[in-house]
Amino acid sequence: MADTVEVELIVIGAGVAGCTAALYAKRYGLDVVILDKGPPGGQLMTVSLVENYPGFPDGITGVELGQRVRQQVENHGVEIVAREATSIEPYEDGRWLVHSADGDYLAIAIIIATGVFPRSLNAPGEKELRGSGVSYCATCDGFLYRGEVVAVVGGGNTAVEEALYLADICKKVYLIHRRDRLRADPHISRQAIERENIEIIWNSAVDEIAGQTEVESLRLHDTQTGQERLLSVTGVFIAIGTIAHTDWLVGLVELADGFINTDIHMQTNQPGIFAAGDIRNTPLRQVATAIGDAAIAGYSAYQYVSRHRGQEYGDYPEPGPAAAEQP
Amino acid sequence: MADTVEVELIVIGAGVAGCTAALYAKRYGLDVVILDKGPPGGQLMTVSLVENYPGFPDGITGVELGQRVRQQVENHGVEIVAREATSIEPYEDGRWLVHSADGDYLAIAIIIATGVFPRSLNAPGEKELRGSGVSYCATCDGFLYRGEVVAVVGGGNTAVEEALYLADICKKVYLIHRRDRLRADPHISRQAIERENIEIIWNSAVDEIAGQTEVESLRLHDTQTGQERLLSVTGVFIAIGTIAHTDWLVGLVELADGFINTDIHMQTNQPGIFAAGDIRNTPLRQVATAIGDAAIAGYSAYQYVSRHRGQEYGDYPEPGPAAAEQP
Repeated sequence: MADTVEVELIVIGAGVAGCTAALYAKRYGLDVVILDKGPPGGQLMTVSLVENYPGFPDGITGVELGQRVRQQVENHGVEIVAREATSIEPYEDGRWLVHSADGDYLAIAIIIATGVFPRSLNAPGEKELRGSGVSYCATCDGFLYRGEVVAVVGGGNTAVEEALYLADICKKVYLIHRRDRLRADPHISRQAIERENIEIIWNSAVDEIAGQTEVESLRLHDTQTGQERLLSVTGVFIAIGTIAHTDWLVGLVELADGFINTDIHMQTNQPGIFAAGDIRNTPLRQVATAIGDAAIAGYSAYQYVSRHRGQEYGDYPEPGPAAAEQP
Repeated sequence: MADTVEVELIVIGAGVAGCTAALYAKRYGLDVVILDKGPPGGQLMTVSLVENYPGFPDGITGVELGQRVRQQVENHGVEIVAREATSIEPYEDGRWLVHSADGDYLAIAIIIATGVFPRSLNAPGEKELRGSGVSYCATCDGFLYRGEVVAVVGGGNTAVEEALYLADICKKVYLIHRRDRLRADPHISRQAIERENIEIIWNSAVDEIAGQTEVESLRLHDTQTGQERLLSVTGVFIAIGTIAHTDWLVGLVELADGFINTDIHMQTNQPGIFAAGDIRNTPLRQVATAIGDAAIAGYSAYQYVSRHRGQEYGDYPEPGPAAAEQP
């Protein structure tokens, strides 16, 4: 075990949920390390302006909020290590062993906060032209398309927010949506519908992303009439939802549709393993809900570690939600 | 019903939970009003420096954070009405009727976010000398005791935070606690124990707050030995926990130890009545958890109103999210 680092708590993921959970745990006195596969930030980095995170009356960019939260946890002396956790297994003394390509960690408790990632369209050309006109983040790549004609695929909050953001810098933005109404919040849907240089293409699906070395056009079909259409664009932003990368957790923690089930203390079905933020099976995925989750996860991990700290980890008592409720 | 104001959603309480819930509901297109008995702010106003609310790496005062959140909800066009809700009853058409001394409100949904209030010591002299040396908020009243000798009663986070705050401005601070160890988080407990001008009086209870027109001394007894002691102070800050004022809700919503039970959607046992923040039966009461709750409550209220809007309430107008989503 020479190469194994021993800590009380490992937080996996340095997005807003992971940083908040670590902040809380650290303030409760835990020895905590954050592992993050990088680059920094999580989903928040893709949000141009966060208007509904309380405390910023004029809104704040996702990038800035992410940086401020990282700064805050670092100010508290928590180290963010650039390593990807690849598997978790029970250790013989009741602790958990977290593997990464660059070394192992042994921890009493773990908080999983790895968030969600953009879903692929799985259209021909998407993979080939990724980074050459195909993007999953308007805030990250939008400036490359200044003055050009681009498309956003999707109809939810992210798609509409990206279309609005791109409309400020591009000549024209097509918003391609499979249905005849947007799923996004009314507040921003209205803005997109009224914006002059956004054209919403209803009831349409993308069959192919075409281009030699860079995106040149999209081939669509109307889902009602079947009619095909070729759309000339130099960039396409795919915003058709998110998925949680939880394949590596199958068989370890209970999942529902790929998201992690927890109790109200954020504990999974495995004692000592908690989850927080977008990766949880939860009714709403927002910065506000992620940090609420994370504060509870940090507190629950502290309670769990306090009970097990210095007990030699031999006779592991029967933890879980009921026990976690004890003061 | 001439004097009755009809809205889609009433939020009761303008603390951080109430404001966040209203912010979310408003952004979802609901017609929402906040009722608040005032003065503004909630428990947050009593916190000198909030260091664990993500987004403020150097911390932010409770007063400033409260003001920023109010500003944010007002920027979104939500009105905060200075009225105290006194009772809620079912209306004949399935909506809820909220009474206040100055008029009634009829709403499809209600979010209760009235928070918690300081608990009384119930010691002789406490009531008589309130405002004359007896305080429940160091951040509010501490400056009145600059350079003086004061006491804080309690051993939890609030008590220790208040002692630390007062130690910066007072000559000496006694921290009187019934037990032999602090309940507060280790992070701040350590600071209090190490601070030179804080003296912790362990295992002690306050029997009387004495003084003619202002606090002059405290009479204590040692809970182990029974020995009495007189402590000369000019101010005493009582920080022995909080209670929720839910008497007016008994028989309407399900309570547990005075706190409101909800499901994961923040809905109470009454359809259309939601709760958020400190007033909820919840494992942790923090700004972070309050806003997490509140975002979900706002979203759930929006879903509830969307389902019921224009269906059963006669000539209830039709606009809002559903209509706005149409091209």
